[in-house]
Amino acid sequence: MLESEKKILRINMNDLSVKWEEVKDEWKHLGGRGLTSTIISEEVPALCEPLGPYNKLIIAPGLVTGSTAPSTGRLSVGAKSPLTNGIKEANAGGRTPQKLARAGVKAVIIEGHRKDKNKWYNIIIKKDNAEIVEANEYHNMGNYELIKQLWEKYGSKPGIIGSGIAGQMLLQGAGIFGNNVENSDPGRFAGRGGLGAVMGSKGIVAIITDDSDGGVIKPVNEEKFKSATAALKEALIEHPVTGKNGGLQNYGTNVLMNVLNEAGSLPAKNWTLGYVEHAVKISGEATHERIDLAVEKFGDQTNAQYAHACNPGCVMKCSMIVVDKDSGKEVLSPLEYESAWSLGNNTMIHTYEDVVELNRICNDIGLDTIEAGNALAVAMDAGALEFGDGPAAIKALKGVAEDTPMGRIIGSGAVTTGRVFGSNRVAHVKGQSMPAYDPRPIRGIGVTYATNPMGGDHTAGYTIAAEILGIKGEVTDPRAIDKAGLSRAFQETTAFLDSSGYCLFTAFAILDVDAGFAGLVDSYAAIMGEEFTVDDVTKFGRKILNLERAFNKAAGMTNADDRLPEFMKTEPLPPHNVVFDVTDEELDAVHNSL
Amino acid sequence: MLESEKKILRINMNDLSVKWEEVKDEWKHLGGRGLTSTIISEEVPALCEPLGPYNKLIIAPGLVTGSTAPSTGRLSVGAKSPLTNGIKEANAGGRTPQKLARAGVKAVIIEGHRKDKNKWYNIIIKKDNAEIVEANEYHNMGNYELIKQLWEKYGSKPGIIGSGIAGQMLLQGAGIFGNNVENSDPGRFAGRGGLGAVMGSKGIVAIITDDSDGGVIKPVNEEKFKSATAALKEALIEHPVTGKNGGLQNYGTNVLMNVLNEAGSLPAKNWTLGYVEHAVKISGEATHERIDLAVEKFGDQTNAQYAHACNPGCVMKCSMIVVDKDSGKEVLSPLEYESAWSLGNNTMIHTYEDVVELNRICNDIGLDTIEAGNALAVAMDAGALEFGDGPAAIKALKGVAEDTPMGRIIGSGAVTTGRVFGSNRVAHVKGQSMPAYDPRPIRGIGVTYATNPMGGDHTAGYTIAAEILGIKGEVTDPRAIDKAGLSRAFQETTAFLDSSGYCLFTAFAILDVDAGFAGLVDSYAAIMGEEFTVDDVTKFGRKILNLERAFNKAAGMTNADDRLPEFMKTEPLPPHNVVFDVTDEELDAVHNSL
Repeated sequence: MLESEKKILRINMNDLSVKWEEVKDEWKHLGGRGLTSTIISEEVPALCEPLGPYNKLIIAPGLVTGSTAPSTGRLSVGAKSPLTNGIKEANAGGRTPQKLARAGVKAVIIEGHRKDKNKWYNIIIKKDNAEIVEANEYHNMGNYELIKQLWEKYGSKPGIIGSGIAGQMLLQGAGIFGNNVENSDPGRFAGRGGLGAVMGSKGIVAIITDDSDGGVIKPVNEEKFKSATAALKEALIEHPVTGKNGGLQNYGTNVLMNVLNEAGSLPAKNWTLGYVEHAVKISGEATHERIDLAVEKFGDQTNAQYAHACNPGCVMKCSMIVVDKDSGKEVLSPLEYESAWSLGNNTMIHTYEDVVELNRICNDIGLDTIEAGNALAVAMDAGALEFGDGPAAIKALKGVAEDTPMGRIIGSGAVTTGRVFGSNRVAHVKGQSMPAYDPRPIRGIGVTYATNPMGGDHTAGYTIAAEILGIKGEVTDPRAIDKAGLSRAFQETTAFLDSSGYCLFTAFAILDVDAGFAGLVDSYAAIMGEEFTVDDVTKFGRKILNLERAFNKAAGMTNADDRLPEFMKTEPLPPHNVVFDVTDEELDAVHNSL
Repeated sequence: MLESEKKILRINMNDLSVKWEEVKDEWKHLGGRGLTSTIISEEVPALCEPLGPYNKLIIAPGLVTGSTAPSTGRLSVGAKSPLTNGIKEANAGGRTPQKLARAGVKAVIIEGHRKDKNKWYNIIIKKDNAEIVEANEYHNMGNYELIKQLWEKYGSKPGIIGSGIAGQMLLQGAGIFGNNVENSDPGRFAGRGGLGAVMGSKGIVAIITDDSDGGVIKPVNEEKFKSATAALKEALIEHPVTGKNGGLQNYGTNVLMNVLNEAGSLPAKNWTLGYVEHAVKISGEATHERIDLAVEKFGDQTNAQYAHACNPGCVMKCSMIVVDKDSGKEVLSPLEYESAWSLGNNTMIHTYEDVVELNRICNDIGLDTIEAGNALAVAMDAGALEFGDGPAAIKALKGVAEDTPMGRIIGSGAVTTGRVFGSNRVAHVKGQSMPAYDPRPIRGIGVTYATNPMGGDHTAGYTIAAEILGIKGEVTDPRAIDKAGLSRAFQETTAFLDSSGYCLFTAFAILDVDAGFAGLVDSYAAIMGEEFTVDDVTKFGRKILNLERAFNKAAGMTNADDRLPEFMKTEPLPPHNVVFDVTDEELDAVHNSL
C-alpha cells in the first residue's frame, strides 16, 4: 500500500457512526504530529472544554510508519489538553502505530460525546472496516488484565491502545496506554497532557487494530528509500548512544539517571536538590545488574531483557524488561528514565521494588508516570505524605482506582495537587509538570520547557543532547543563557521527526552523522515521492509550531504562559546553587514569528 | 481627623517590621478598591505566585469610611488572587473598616513572607502605633472561638479580621472574615478570590484594630457634607428596597430567593434548574417567620433580629440574626441570599437548619460561602456526594478543618473540585465561581460575570437592579442580549462606590432618586474638599477598571478569559429553556478601551 492510499477514519460518538474519508490534499503530505496538530487547528474550537463534546481526539501514525524503515513505529495522539488547555501531541511506540498505518489509516478522528454516559465502547479497526462495539465489561478494568483479555479475544496479536481507569475517571494525569510489542505489558504510553481523559470522555475503553488485511507501506521512490534507510540504519547501529551495545541497549533510557545526577541536574525531593547519592540504586545500571542476576539464575526461563524494542523493527532497542527476582517473570516493561526519576528520585523513594511497583500501578490504571511522580512529590513537599515513604506512595496511587479523594487528587496531576495542598512549589509549565532535567543548571532545556507549545516537556526540544551528551564531540555549555536559537532548532527538528514517525532518539545519531540525517530525510521524501531535503526540515517544523502556537493563542495563552515557575528563579538548586536566569526576552526570542 | 492626615501602614513579614508612611500625592484622592487596585498595580509583579512572597495584601477603608455619612463602613481587601490569578478586591462591612479609618490608616500593605513557616502572628493596629505579635496559640482556631478570645483579651471592642483555618491552610476558597458590629459572629466576609489564603500565606491569623486614640473622619467642606449626607440618608430611608420596613429590613438580602426563583433564574442542582418549588423553605421569608416565632416565644430574651446593620451607622440594615429555635440564642448572623442559595439551593439542600449549619461552618473555618456551595454542588453533580444530602455536605465541609483530602478539595473551590472529580460543569469565570443569578435568562449579569476583572462576581456590576428590580419603575428586559452598555455603566459606577466606602446597596436608592445620588457624590467631594460631580463617577470608575484590566493582561489574561463556561452556551436552563447567547463581540465591547 502507498501512503497516499490511506484514509481518514472518522468516528462520531454522538450517533456512534463510522466514516472512511478520502484525505484532503492539504493533509496528504502530513503524518503524526503534523497531522494531529493540523486537524485540531482546523476542527477543534480553541476555547472548547477539553473533556466536552467539542474536543476531538486525533490518532495518527507517522508518515513513514508502517514502512520498512527502522525505528519509525511511532504514534501521535492529539487533542486539546485538559492539563494545559492548549494543543497537545503525545507520542508513543508499541504495536498500534505500524498496524494502524498498514490497515490503511492515515488518522483516526474521534469526535462528539455518547448520549449515555454509562455506556462504554471499544473500537475495532481493520482495513476498510471499523466498528464501535459495546464494552461495558471492560470499563474500569486494569490495563494488564484488559490487554490479556483483548489479546485472547481478538487473536490476531492486535495493537491495543486505551484510556485506562484513570482516563475513564477523567483524571488529568491520565495517559493513553499501548501494548508492548511481544507481551501484554501496557508499557507504551502517549502519556502526557491528560489525553487518556479525553479518550475517556468519549466513552472509549480501547481501540484494537488488526492489520491482517492491510500491508506494508511502500515508498513511491523505492530505490531512494532503500539507500536512504540503509544509510540511516548504519548511523543508528554504529552510534555509541543508539547502537549495538551502546548506552541505550545496555541500560535503557535510564542510562541517564547517573549522568544527570553527576551533572547536578537530577531533580530530587520535589525539585529542591540536584544531586542525591542514592539515585544509583534506581539507575539503568541497577536494572542491568538485576537482569544479569536473573539471566544467571533462570537462563532461558526468564524474560528479562536488556535491549527490547518498543516497536517492531526498531534497531535502537532502548527498552528493558524488568523481572521479579524470585520468579524471573516480567513485572515491568520498560522502566524508563523519566518514570524512575519521577516516581523514585523526585519522591526520594530509592527502593527499587517500590519504584517498579509505583510504575506498574501507573501502567495498570493508565497514569502518566511523570505527572504522577510529580504529584506525589508535591504532596510530600506540602506535608501530605512523607518523602521517601514508598508504601505510603503506593497506597496513595492505588487510591486512584479505588476512587478515594486522595487518589483523585494525585491522579489529577501536580498542579492540581499543589492547589489542593496549598503549595506553589510545582515544577510545571502551562499546567503540565516537568520531566527529569532541572532547568536551573541546564538552561536550554528550560527554554524548551517554557516555550514549546506542549507545556513542561523534554521531548519537544531535547537540548540535553547538546548540553549534556554533546553533538559531534562538542558540548554546549549548559549554564549559558543564550539558548533561544538552540531550543528553536531542536523544537523545529522535533516537530518534523514527530510527524515522520521516526523515533526522537534517532536524533542522537543523525545529529552526529550527516549521512544518517540525510538518509532519514530522504526516506521521508521517498515515501511520498516528493522533493524534501534537509533544508526543508526546519521550515516544516516551523510551520507546525506556528499552527500549534496559534491554537494556544486562540485558547487564551500569551507570553506569560511561556515562563518557568517563580521558585526556579528564586531558589538556587544545589549542588551548583544556580537559579534559572534566562531572560524573558530570550524566551520570547524562540518563536519570534508569532 | 481629616482624610488627608491618614497614613499608609506598611508591614513587612520578611523582617517583621512596621512602618508608617506618608501618602503619596497620587494616592491621596483614593480609598477602598481604587486604592487597593492602584497599589497592587504599582507594587505587585503581575506574574508572581499569589501565595508567594512577592504578592501583597492591601487593606483599605473607603474614602468616606469613618466619617458620619450613612452606610459607608466598607472595607476593601486586595491582592493578586490565587483563585483567578488576576487582580482582586473583596469587600466587607463589620467593625474594622471605620476603626481602621479612625485610627488614621489609609491602607495597610502587608508584604513579604515570614522566615519560619511555623510561626503565626497577629497584628495590632492603633493610632500611630502598630505591632506584630506572636500568635501561635490562635493558629488553627475556629473563628467563633478566636473572636471571643480576642474580644476578651483586647477589651476595646476592636475590629477583628483574619485568615481563618482555611486561609492558614492556604485553601483557595478561603475568605477574610471580620467580626460583626455588636456580637462575636465572624459573619462579615471579604469572601471572594481566596484572599484568606493570601493572608494565611503571610502567616497572619488576625488583625485587631482599636481606634480609641483616633477620631471620626471629618470632611474638609463640612457644610456641603452635611446637606449631602442628609439628602442621601433621605433617599435611603424612603426607598422601598433600602428603607424602613422595606424588603431588605424585613427579609435581609435573602428577600431575593423567591424573586429569582419566580424569575426562573435561581440556579439549582449545580446550575441545571432555574426554578425549584422548595426554595421558599430557605428564603428570607422563612427567616422572617423564624424570627417572628423566636420573638413571640422569647421576647426580649432572644437576640433574633430582622434588621441588623453590618457596619455602625448603616441605615439600610440588610442583615438578619438567625437564632436557635429552642434557646432563642444566635446561631448565625447573617444568612445572606448568596450563601443560602449556594449552600442550599444549588446543592438542593432545603432543610433550613442544614443550610444554617453549613454557613456556620464556613464562617467558623473562614470559607467563602459562594465558593464552598458551588464546590459542594460540583462534587454532587459529579457523583462524589448526593444532591440534597445535608448531613453528607456538613461532613465534607467539616473535613476542611480536619484536613481530610475531601475537605481540602471542597475548600479549594469549585474549579479545583471540578478538575479532581472530572467535571467541567463548573459555573465560573476566571476560576472564580458564579453567585446566585443564572446568566442564561438574565444576560446583563452574565456580561458582568464574563467581563469584570474579578471573575464570576455579581457585585462588580449588579445589573440585576435594572433587569429584575427595575430602575425608576422600568425593568430592562433580562432576555435582551445588547447588554455591554448596561454592564459597563454598572461596572464603572461600582468601581467608584467600592472606592468611596459606600455600600453597593446604596445603588438601589440612588439609581432611583437623583438627589440621593448627588448627595452621595457630594459627600465624597466634601471629604476631600475637591471638585467631584456625578459626571466624574464613571470616569473615575473607568480609570480603576483600566488599571485592573491592565494588571490582568500582564498576568496573562486575554479576551478568552472574558467568557462564560461552555455548558451555559449549550445547555438550556429550565423553565425558560434558554442558553446564554450574548455574542463574543458584545462581551468585548464592554471594555473597548483596552
